Amino acid sequence: MTITSPYGFTAAGVRAGLKSRGKDLALVYNTGPLKHAAAVFTTNTFAAAPVLWSRQVISDGRADAVVLNSGGANACTGPAGFQDTHTTAEQVAEALSAAGQDVSATDVLVCSTGLIGERLNMDALLPGVEAAAAALSAEETPGWDAAHAIMTTDTVPKTIAVENEAGTFRIGGMAKGAGMLAPGMATMLAVITTDAVISQPDLDAALREAVRVSFNRADSDGCMSTNDTVIAMASGAHPNADQAGVDLEEFQTLLTEVCMNLAESLINDAEGHRHVIRVTVTNAPSEEDAETAARAVARSNLFKTAIYGRDPNWGRILSAVGTTDVAFDPAQVSVSVNGVWVCRNGGIGEDRSLVDFPPGAQVEVVIDLAAGEAEATILTNDLTHDYVHENAAYST
Amino acid sequence: MTITSPYGFTAAGVRAGLKSRGKDLALVYNTGPLKHAAAVFTTNTFAAAPVLWSRQVISDGRADAVVLNSGGANACTGPAGFQDTHTTAEQVAEALSAAGQDVSATDVLVCSTGLIGERLNMDALLPGVEAAAAALSAEETPGWDAAHAIMTTDTVPKTIAVENEAGTFRIGGMAKGAGMLAPGMATMLAVITTDAVISQPDLDAALREAVRVSFNRADSDGCMSTNDTVIAMASGAHPNADQAGVDLEEFQTLLTEVCMNLAESLINDAEGHRHVIRVTVTNAPSEEDAETAARAVARSNLFKTAIYGRDPNWGRILSAVGTTDVAFDPAQVSVSVNGVWVCRNGGIGEDRSLVDFPPGAQVEVVIDLAAGEAEATILTNDLTHDYVHENAAYST
Repeated sequence: MTITSPYGFTAAGVRAGLKSRGKDLALVYNTGPLKHAAAVFTTNTFAAAPVLWSRQVISDGRADAVVLNSGGANACTGPAGFQDTHTTAEQVAEALSAAGQDVSATDVLVCSTGLIGERLNMDALLPGVEAAAAALSAEETPGWDAAHAIMTTDTVPKTIAVENEAGTFRIGGMAKGAGMLAPGMATMLAVITTDAVISQPDLDAALREAVRVSFNRADSDGCMSTNDTVIAMASGAHPNADQAGVDLEEFQTLLTEVCMNLAESLINDAEGHRHVIRVTVTNAPSEEDAETAARAVARSNLFKTAIYGRDPNWGRILSAVGTTDVAFDPAQVSVSVNGVWVCRNGGIGEDRSLVDFPPGAQVEVVIDLAAGEAEATILTNDLTHDYVHENAAYST
Repeated sequence: MTITSPYGFTAAGVRAGLKSRGKDLALVYNTGPLKHAAAVFTTNTFAAAPVLWSRQVISDGRADAVVLNSGGANACTGPAGFQDTHTTAEQVAEALSAAGQDVSATDVLVCSTGLIGERLNMDALLPGVEAAAAALSAEETPGWDAAHAIMTTDTVPKTIAVENEAGTFRIGGMAKGAGMLAPGMATMLAVITTDAVISQPDLDAALREAVRVSFNRADSDGCMSTNDTVIAMASGAHPNADQAGVDLEEFQTLLTEVCMNLAESLINDAEGHRHVIRVTVTNAPSEEDAETAARAVARSNLFKTAIYGRDPNWGRILSAVGTTDVAFDPAQVSVSVNGVWVCRNGGIGEDRSLVDFPPGAQVEVVIDLAAGEAEATILTNDLTHDYVHENAAYST
């Protein structure tokens, strides 16, 4: 159930010595026959060196391998940091070529995660690349190793794999981080593998749509990293693959499912949270409006602390929705928390003491704008003492 | 040094019984001769009943009195809540008229602050209005009483008064709350009084400019209330007033100073903070860009928790700046924290261990974008355990 579950991929996760302990370097290799790849990157102006590099690599729609490290983001490290990324890709190409694979450095994607503003320890990283290349395997365990190696403050590795009903293609994935392409303390990285036969443009379009409704709607604390990257690679290697090309609708459904699963895993593992919260806006003028309103609530510290206090404080929910430019009639808006409509038609609804917060269950907030038919859900967390503690203490 | 310091104003603060203890109802009356008034309100779609009412009152540029209550925001209370506000204004007009003042309810501004979604206790409020009208006085103490009566989670009343050098006009003010026109847990309310001779359009323009660079740049937690209101009233009653009209430039300078002082008082008293933080963006393409970038930093929970942890984490500062659409070269940006340039030209600068965080001192963050000549400062606070505690416990 990892990135090696689809045919045509090998992986490895090793300890290079970038972090104080544990595995910290992952390699994923697409053995083909297809080498199609697509990626979505952070829009942060301070995009890290590996993002700048990988944007160039992906521009022709081909990537043979991804190398990922934790223990350093290689962001705000200037031309020297970019050179480090370049050198890393060269080392991957060299190691794979030495093993009989014909790989160019310009087809090697690089991802890094960790602290910003510090150079990577290349003396540790480069031997790590050698070790990872030597350890590449299509078995399940190396897939898990890779997922372990990209963890920073994550408490568990996040992986998944699915196969379609007809058994003609699989999609696997791994991720790390604490939120959307605007994640928590460090970076959100995800690698998706598939053995479907799919053109690069179709893979690209499917990835963008899946990310839009999954990772981009998982918003733990509203902060966007310099390193966020989601990569998809297609090998076309499934033995039963439809050589005429995968059914795109079915592929989209499964890819979205995989991304949604990983996004939920990120939110479930977000730093210091007590509650996972689903903020759904219904009956909005447009899906974009629904997302805007739901995100405003998900980013309100007052709302997030209220949920931490198990307080169905619908006033703070309305306040947040009201700061957006979404068009609706405030006298028609209703809000439910865990199924109890505590606000009806912009005013007091059912008794808020009826709202239950069962331990371990997600908190479900629904905001009915009564202004259309569109809907969207943002996944987020509450704001807790532990979040403050963990983020006040991270680098010191 | 309160709202009664300028000539032509009386005030009172009494206990009506809306809160569990303490004064909770304030009245400010402009005895004239001028009755010019201006106001800036929240842009929240769920504007509270008193905001809806006061927008109508101010539309002709005249207001005779302001009545303010804590102990209830009267927001999301529907038509009945609006009727409560109307009734409150009627009661003020009646009480003042009974005392020989000719006041119409449509010239009475109303402000409320407290929990959203609960009706006001009118049986307590209306006798409170009577008591306040009877207690109106131009002395200093009633001005302080009024400032006390509008407090919610504030720990100290906020008042100020200044006089220009020539001794021809004064400006007084009071405020409550925890931030900008996007304040903390409850509402930001401010009332400014002046005895200058100034036209209503000039007063209005001066107030908007002063609010733009003061209250609107005090951003404690990024949340905007349903009740935020800043009111200015001019009596023209200073005995030495220039009857031809105040020097507008001098008036603007002093009004901005008053608003800035009150805004700083709000941030200094924000809920549960450990540090007051000044985020200044310099050398930006425009003042708006500078404000946008500074606000992005001020709203980053990762930055705010880092400062709580006394961590000059410039990576989180750059990350936040990078999420905006401000145009700059990331390789030219430098950041200082308390005078130490920890980031130079988008990369590592001076040793971050040189940064000192003296107890009680403001934290000064400067971000030099090297992309123009404009600058702006946002005042904010760190994100602390106490903020989480106070906001998780407020209504339950």
